[in-house]
Amino acid sequence: MNQYSDATATEINEAMVAAKAAAAVMRKTPLKKRAALMYSIADALENNGDELIHVAMAETNLPEARLKGERGRTVFQLRSYAKACEQGTWLEATIDTAIPDKVPAKPDIRKMLVPLGPVVVFGSSNFPFAYSTAGGDTASAFAAGCPVIVKAHPAHPQTSEIVAKIIHEAVKLNGLPTGVFAHLHGASFEVGKALVMHPNTKAVGFTGSYVGGKALHDMANQRKEPIPVFAEMGSVNPVYLLEEKLSADAEQIATQYAGSITLGVGQFCTKPGLIFGIKGEGLDRFMSELSKQIGSMQPGNMLHAGIAKSYQKNKDNALAQDGISILATSSNEAVDNQGAPTIAKVKGKDYLSNSLLHQEVFGPYSLVVECEDADEMLNIAESMEGQLTTTVMGTDNDIRFSELLFDAIADKCGRLILNGVPTGVEVCLSMHHGGPFPATTDSRFTSVGADAIKRFARPMSFQNFANHLLPLELQNENPLQIIRTVNDVLGNGIV
Amino acid sequence: MNQYSDATATEINEAMVAAKAAAAVMRKTPLKKRAALMYSIADALENNGDELIHVAMAETNLPEARLKGERGRTVFQLRSYAKACEQGTWLEATIDTAIPDKVPAKPDIRKMLVPLGPVVVFGSSNFPFAYSTAGGDTASAFAAGCPVIVKAHPAHPQTSEIVAKIIHEAVKLNGLPTGVFAHLHGASFEVGKALVMHPNTKAVGFTGSYVGGKALHDMANQRKEPIPVFAEMGSVNPVYLLEEKLSADAEQIATQYAGSITLGVGQFCTKPGLIFGIKGEGLDRFMSELSKQIGSMQPGNMLHAGIAKSYQKNKDNALAQDGISILATSSNEAVDNQGAPTIAKVKGKDYLSNSLLHQEVFGPYSLVVECEDADEMLNIAESMEGQLTTTVMGTDNDIRFSELLFDAIADKCGRLILNGVPTGVEVCLSMHHGGPFPATTDSRFTSVGADAIKRFARPMSFQNFANHLLPLELQNENPLQIIRTVNDVLGNGIV
Repeated sequence: MNQYSDATATEINEAMVAAKAAAAVMRKTPLKKRAALMYSIADALENNGDELIHVAMAETNLPEARLKGERGRTVFQLRSYAKACEQGTWLEATIDTAIPDKVPAKPDIRKMLVPLGPVVVFGSSNFPFAYSTAGGDTASAFAAGCPVIVKAHPAHPQTSEIVAKIIHEAVKLNGLPTGVFAHLHGASFEVGKALVMHPNTKAVGFTGSYVGGKALHDMANQRKEPIPVFAEMGSVNPVYLLEEKLSADAEQIATQYAGSITLGVGQFCTKPGLIFGIKGEGLDRFMSELSKQIGSMQPGNMLHAGIAKSYQKNKDNALAQDGISILATSSNEAVDNQGAPTIAKVKGKDYLSNSLLHQEVFGPYSLVVECEDADEMLNIAESMEGQLTTTVMGTDNDIRFSELLFDAIADKCGRLILNGVPTGVEVCLSMHHGGPFPATTDSRFTSVGADAIKRFARPMSFQNFANHLLPLELQNENPLQIIRTVNDVLGNGIV
Repeated sequence: MNQYSDATATEINEAMVAAKAAAAVMRKTPLKKRAALMYSIADALENNGDELIHVAMAETNLPEARLKGERGRTVFQLRSYAKACEQGTWLEATIDTAIPDKVPAKPDIRKMLVPLGPVVVFGSSNFPFAYSTAGGDTASAFAAGCPVIVKAHPAHPQTSEIVAKIIHEAVKLNGLPTGVFAHLHGASFEVGKALVMHPNTKAVGFTGSYVGGKALHDMANQRKEPIPVFAEMGSVNPVYLLEEKLSADAEQIATQYAGSITLGVGQFCTKPGLIFGIKGEGLDRFMSELSKQIGSMQPGNMLHAGIAKSYQKNKDNALAQDGISILATSSNEAVDNQGAPTIAKVKGKDYLSNSLLHQEVFGPYSLVVECEDADEMLNIAESMEGQLTTTVMGTDNDIRFSELLFDAIADKCGRLILNGVPTGVEVCLSMHHGGPFPATTDSRFTSVGADAIKRFARPMSFQNFANHLLPLELQNENPLQIIRTVNDVLGNGIV
C-alpha cells in the first residue's frame, strides 16, 4: 500500500540539521506567533474539504463520519493548545525579586519553561488525524516552541502526506524556517531508530503498541545523552462492577459496555478489555444482556489487514487459555479486514494465574472475569499493571465498603471513572491521558489536554538579569499579561 | 570510619514492604498533616543543639559555621516545602464541569497530582544535612505524600543516624505509620541496587557523581517497570567573560571568582570550573589578579580522604594534558585530607580537542580557557554538554553582540547568571537547580525549590464523581481553599 520510500540516512540527517537550526528560531518565536502557526494549520485542515477524508477512508477503513469527527477534534486540539500557548500559564513563570540586605544577599531570580528542542513524533494507526501528523504531539511540541519531525505511520502515508503539506504551507505562511517541520516515511524500524538516536533529537512522542513504545524508550536511554520519550502504549482499562450497582442496573450497564467495547471496532486505547464482577445473579444478568447485544452486532472493518490479523490471533490465543469460554460473538463471520465483536468469560482464579489474560487484545473484545468474592476482586486489583483508565460501577454503599479496592486502583491508573465508560477522551485541561507503566513510559505527563505541552519544555532560571535583557514573559511590567507567581503570589503580577 | 553494617536483603525487603503499606496511608494523609510532619522534623533539627553539629564536623571536616548554616538551610527547606505542600498550588488541581448537552455529553472531570509511592533517597557527601537524610529530596517526597527510604551516605553515617532518629520520632509524634520512613546503611553498591530494583520502589532521588547517578538511572530503566530517577550529577558551570566587561572590571571579577571557586573548598556542584575569555589585555589582568589571590589562599580540609584523593588525581590528570599550564596554586602544600586551590590555563584550541578538560574536577580548581576570538568562544559554547549553571559576565554592549553565544548557552543550562557567580543556590520557587543531561537525568525537574515536589507526583483524573466522593482538593466548595483551575479560570475557584 505504501507508495512512499523510506527516508534515507541522508534525508534523516538533513531534517535533523534543519530542525536544530530552526530550534534556535522557534525558542525565540513569541507565543502569539507559535499560536498563529497552529491556528493556520487548524484552519487549513478544517477547510481542506473532502479529499483528505476520502484518502483517509481508503487507507484506514474508518467511516466518513468518524474521520470527519476526528478531523474536528484535531482542529479543536490545535486551537485549544494554541490558546493555551499564547495565554502562557503553562510557562509557570515565577519571579523572586532581589533582597539585597539578606545575608548573603538574595539575587533576583526568574524562571520559566523553555523548549527542549527538536521533537520526533511517531503517528498512531488508530487516530490518523488526532494522533498523527498534525495531532496532539505535534501541537504540543509547536506550542512548547519545538520543531517537529514526524515519522508518518506506514498504514496511512498518503493521509499523512496531505496533512504534512498543510503544515509545510502554514510554516511558510507564518514566516518560520522550513526546518520547523519535517515529514519522513519509514516502514522499517531503521528510520525510527535513526531519528531517535540522532544527537539533534531532544524528545520523542509516540502513540502505539507496548512493543514499539518500549523499544523507543530503551533506545533513547541508551543514547550518550538520554532523552525523554513519552510513549502512550495502550491499556486494558479494567472495569469493576460492584454488587449493589450491578444488582440494580445490570442490563443498563451491559448496554453501556456493549457500546463502549465495540466503539470504532474496539480500536481505542481506552476500550474496556477486562470486566470484573462477583459471581451471582447480578453478574449473570449483566453477562446475559451483554451477550445478547454483542451477539447481534456485525463485524466491522478494522484499520488495516495487519491489525485485523493481530486481533484474530490475540483473541484466539486468549480464547485458547484454560478456563475461558466464549459468551458471545457476532453471528456473521468476520471476512477480509473485519473484526468480530466477542465477549469471553473466565473465573477469577484462572485469570489470576495466567498473565496472558492480563494483556490488551486490540479490537472489539472484552473478557468478563467472574470473581469468587470481594477478596478475590481485591487480589486482582492489587496485581493489576498500570492503566490509562480504570472504571468502577458502584452505588455510594458499594463505594463505602470498597476502600481497599480504591486504594489498589489509585496506584494503577491515570483516570478513574465512576459509573461511566472509559472510551471518549475529552480534550480539556482536567483530562489526564497517561498512567503508570506500562500504560505510558512516564506517569507524570499526559498526551491529551494543554498540559501535554509540558512534556516538551523544561524550566530555566535567569539570575540577576536587567529587566530589558529578560524574556518578555519575565519582565517587570508583564507585557504579555500572563499569569505568573511573583514573590510567591500567583496572579497577573507586575513587579 | 563506618561503624554501621550494610543493610541485609531481608532488612531492605522489610523496609520496602512497610513503605508500600505506608504509601496507601500517606496518599490519603491530608496536606496539613504532611506539612505537620515536616514542621516537626524542622523543629527537632533546629532544637537538636550542638551534638549533631559536632558529629557532622568530625565526619565531614566541614567547619562549624558552615554546618550550622547548612542546618539552618535544611530547616528552611523543610518549612518552605511544608508551606507549599499545605497551600496546595503544586497539586495543579483542575476542574472541568460537565456539559450534558454537548454531543457527545461532556462528563465532569477533575485532575490533581497524586503521590508516586515509595521514594528511595541517596544522600550526598557534600551536603550532610541539606541533601542528605532530611534534605531536599526527603522533604519533597514527604510533601508529595510519598514514604521515604534513605540510604545513608557512608561518609557521614552517624550524622545520618541522628537525623534519622529525629525523623522516626516525628513520624511517631504525628501518628503516621513507621513505614513512612526508613533509614538504611550501605557502603556497598549492592544495597543501593537492591533498593532501586525493589518492585515497591516507585522513584529515586540522588545527588552525587555522574558515575553513581547514571548507574542508578540505567538500573531503573532496566526494571520490568521502569521508574523515574532524578539524579543531580554535578556540573562544570562554565563562565563566559565578555570583552567590554572584562576590560572594565577584570580585577573585581577575579576577586568574585577567587571566592566562588574556593568556597567550601570548591565542594559545591555549582563551583565555576571553566572560565572562558578572549585573549587580550583584559583577560591578562583577570588571570593576574586571580592568580595573586588563589596563590595567597591556604589549602582546606576536604570532606573525606576519598574526595581529597580524587581531587588530587583528577587535578593532576587535567594538569598533565597538552597545553595546560598552572597559573597559581596555594604556596602551602596540601596535607592529609586537604585540597589546594589551583588555577590553570589552556588555549581554546587545546581545550576544544581534549574532552578530558571538559569534565568536572570536584574541588577548588578552575581552568581558564584563553580563546583566540569570539568565534572560538562560540564553538566552545556550542560543544558544551548540559550544565546546572552557566554565567556570562558582560555589559549591555557585550550582550547585544553575543546573540549566537546566548543561543548556544540557552540549550545547555538550567540556570543562567548574568554578572554574578554560580555558587549560592537560593531556596525559592524561581530557583531551577537542574539542567540538561549530564547535569541531571531529567531536565524537566528541579531538586531545589518547592517545585521539587513535582518529581514525586503524577496527575490523576477523576471522572463523573459525586462531589462527596471526590478528594477534598477537588470538591465543589474548595474546602482546602487551594488555588485551582475551574473551567479554564485559575483562582480560588468554587464550583
